[in-house]
Amino acid sequence: VKTLIAAALALAIATPALAQNAAALRDAALKDDTAWNVVRSLTSEVGARPAGSLAAARARDWGVAKLRELGFSNIKVEPYTVTAWERGPESAELTAPFRRPLNILGLGRSIPTPAGGVEGEVVVFASYDAMLSATDRQIAGKIVLVNQPMVRAQDGSGYGAINRNRTQGASEAARRGAIAYLTRSLATDDANNPHTGAMTYAAGVRQIPAAAVSVPDANVLADLAAKGPVRIKLSMMSRTVPGAPAWDVSGEMIGTGRPDEIIVIGGHLDSWDVGTGAVDDAAGIAITTAAAKIVGQARPRRTIRVVMWGAEEIGESGARYGRDHAAEVPKIVAASESDNGAGAIFALALPPGTRTKPEFAELQSTLAPLKINVVAAPATGSGADTAALHQAGVPAFSFDQDSSKYFDLHHSQNDTLEQIDPGDLAQNVAAWTVVLHFIANSTVDLRVPAPAR
Amino acid sequence: VKTLIAAALALAIATPALAQNAAALRDAALKDDTAWNVVRSLTSEVGARPAGSLAAARARDWGVAKLRELGFSNIKVEPYTVTAWERGPESAELTAPFRRPLNILGLGRSIPTPAGGVEGEVVVFASYDAMLSATDRQIAGKIVLVNQPMVRAQDGSGYGAINRNRTQGASEAARRGAIAYLTRSLATDDANNPHTGAMTYAAGVRQIPAAAVSVPDANVLADLAAKGPVRIKLSMMSRTVPGAPAWDVSGEMIGTGRPDEIIVIGGHLDSWDVGTGAVDDAAGIAITTAAAKIVGQARPRRTIRVVMWGAEEIGESGARYGRDHAAEVPKIVAASESDNGAGAIFALALPPGTRTKPEFAELQSTLAPLKINVVAAPATGSGADTAALHQAGVPAFSFDQDSSKYFDLHHSQNDTLEQIDPGDLAQNVAAWTVVLHFIANSTVDLRVPAPAR
Repeated sequence: VKTLIAAALALAIATPALAQNAAALRDAALKDDTAWNVVRSLTSEVGARPAGSLAAARARDWGVAKLRELGFSNIKVEPYTVTAWERGPESAELTAPFRRPLNILGLGRSIPTPAGGVEGEVVVFASYDAMLSATDRQIAGKIVLVNQPMVRAQDGSGYGAINRNRTQGASEAARRGAIAYLTRSLATDDANNPHTGAMTYAAGVRQIPAAAVSVPDANVLADLAAKGPVRIKLSMMSRTVPGAPAWDVSGEMIGTGRPDEIIVIGGHLDSWDVGTGAVDDAAGIAITTAAAKIVGQARPRRTIRVVMWGAEEIGESGARYGRDHAAEVPKIVAASESDNGAGAIFALALPPGTRTKPEFAELQSTLAPLKINVVAAPATGSGADTAALHQAGVPAFSFDQDSSKYFDLHHSQNDTLEQIDPGDLAQNVAAWTVVLHFIANSTVDLRVPAPAR
Repeated sequence: VKTLIAAALALAIATPALAQNAAALRDAALKDDTAWNVVRSLTSEVGARPAGSLAAARARDWGVAKLRELGFSNIKVEPYTVTAWERGPESAELTAPFRRPLNILGLGRSIPTPAGGVEGEVVVFASYDAMLSATDRQIAGKIVLVNQPMVRAQDGSGYGAINRNRTQGASEAARRGAIAYLTRSLATDDANNPHTGAMTYAAGVRQIPAAAVSVPDANVLADLAAKGPVRIKLSMMSRTVPGAPAWDVSGEMIGTGRPDEIIVIGGHLDSWDVGTGAVDDAAGIAITTAAAKIVGQARPRRTIRVVMWGAEEIGESGARYGRDHAAEVPKIVAASESDNGAGAIFALALPPGTRTKPEFAELQSTLAPLKINVVAAPATGSGADTAALHQAGVPAFSFDQDSSKYFDLHHSQNDTLEQIDPGDLAQNVAAWTVVLHFIANSTVDLRVPAPAR
């Protein structure tokens, strides 16, 4: 009974102190410009940095220097190889009923066209399902365009609903005899720049070239196709590079009490080749690095590791990290990736049962001024690069960010520093700071849910 | 005295009837979809249409067919020749401190670079004035970038304030020894696409290549140049084509009472080569054509002529029209061009003294529901294509449109149908309908101001 009372007393004293410190760090984070400077530096001094490119090697060096500059320890570069994809010259042209250029971007992993390009009649579908229910006769020998608009949503759910249009469309079109596949850009605005992204070919299906068309050009193709035959010529050079070098860069703020208990956070260092990868994902790197620095300087009990993953966009860094760090999983108390841009956070999900543990009692009130709810539903994951860790049993925490404008920018030339609101970015840093501070100064095992109350 | 009383009685009866008809036409115009269909048809069925291009000939045929379809008479094609400018392949690349592509668009009338391109160190100025006050030593042998942001303003005044950055910058830089000239795009948003537009070389000054850089890339160049030497390579192919064919297309709604008194209105049919020229200036053509059709169908006294000018962007159609129609000037009772996009109208300016004439007494109340003020300051002009007419004495009326977003789109790939708000477009048509109805059914000479009251 004495032990229980002592523990309760310790809690009664310790928890408000933790909350007070968290509130002070939160307010400091709101004024801290580390994250902004990190995004600005990465986007202007490195720029676009696809895995396997020369720029990715510059990004690696940038990451090491930045972590050192910000006071991280145990800075590591973990090398591996990926199958890189490199865009070459690309063009598309309407050839009938008249000639005009079209704005396209080849999809990542698409095969190139034959040297002379591929030309054919276009068949336009207003949705992916319409393509799936078309007859082979409608599609065979033609270039398919799926012209399905993307829905704008605060939680970004418009993306999940339409993702297959980009990732799987080529093989579905090829199954029905198509000679090339075009998707309307997965974009929530109507700007005239296409949005790229990775696609995959289904096993055993003929591979055809695949590209994204800008929204306005997709609309024009649909308008014209409603009046008569429309033909286009698509020309795409690209290179697949097996065994290309890639790197994850990481650094730690070492815990003062339980250094062997590690919180793994981060973002991905690679980006698409257009724009400067500001919201995807310099922001994630900046937010997690800045929060780790702020919490780290307050000397937390547990270790915070920031990882800059090197091949998220081509889907290769998450599995690699899980594989190479399998032995470390028991020591990783929690993990989370920031990879949803720089929009303000509105919700936090924690591992099952964590929300009701006494150590986290003040978390909601500390986050409330940032307009963030700690939701009851537990986190089911965080990002692609932490997925393998979570599958191996590492508890996840995750933030919901306002994604209303994220898909105006995503995978496009408009993903640049100018599109980030410094206030929203600072709100992210403050939220991560608070949550990291609570977890890093807690002693509880997040794998063990609190008893139901 | 009897005549005066009769005239006053006629006015007392006629003016409210005119206003009643105008209100009815206004409300019909708000529901009319002619303008939207015209913009959609021109942008999708013709697309970009620079003067001198093959597309311009298609635009000419489109104009004739559209005027015929909408019930216009006296449809004319007036041919002339222009010195056209045709963009060729263009690219720009940062070459130091590292390599990355840059988003540029050559300016209209720029000379090409030498075949191998031009490479040099960049000197960045935060404003045009800063360049003008720089020493030759700062500029000689370098590539100048003027990185001056454009101000967003309802009345579009940010454009006039910065226009010389694009039109005159190359010669000013060349006077100081520059080898090429770059202007930050004249754009009110931060999207990553450059904005083109015409420039001119000052007589007697060495001609150097000139291009617009996207806003984000201009910011990156400025960021990097603040840290150390920055070099870029610019490569621009282009062709100047003297004697290229151009055409103005026109049609009339013939007056029932005074057919020889002509109101000349219209927009320009040519566009830049990027985007589809929706707000610049398919909208102007659509607004004036739709309004003329609506007023014309109500059988006005005077004739309304819609002109689709063929070479506004390279500054050649206005002077030509004034010259070729000089003999007609006494018959043209008023003229106005719509060439400021599709934003809602908020003000109307009339020829001096017109506002206070009894025939126009109900004009303000008829426009009030559209949220338009008839302002006291007289119109001083309307657009580039009517400037020569106004200089020759033709009275001008002109509308102020909300231009807050116009320069997000202007001369860029984002100038497409998707950026037009159908409600705003209809408001424009309704405003033009009202004003055309008043002028076309008036008998007064707008050249003669009303006596002061």
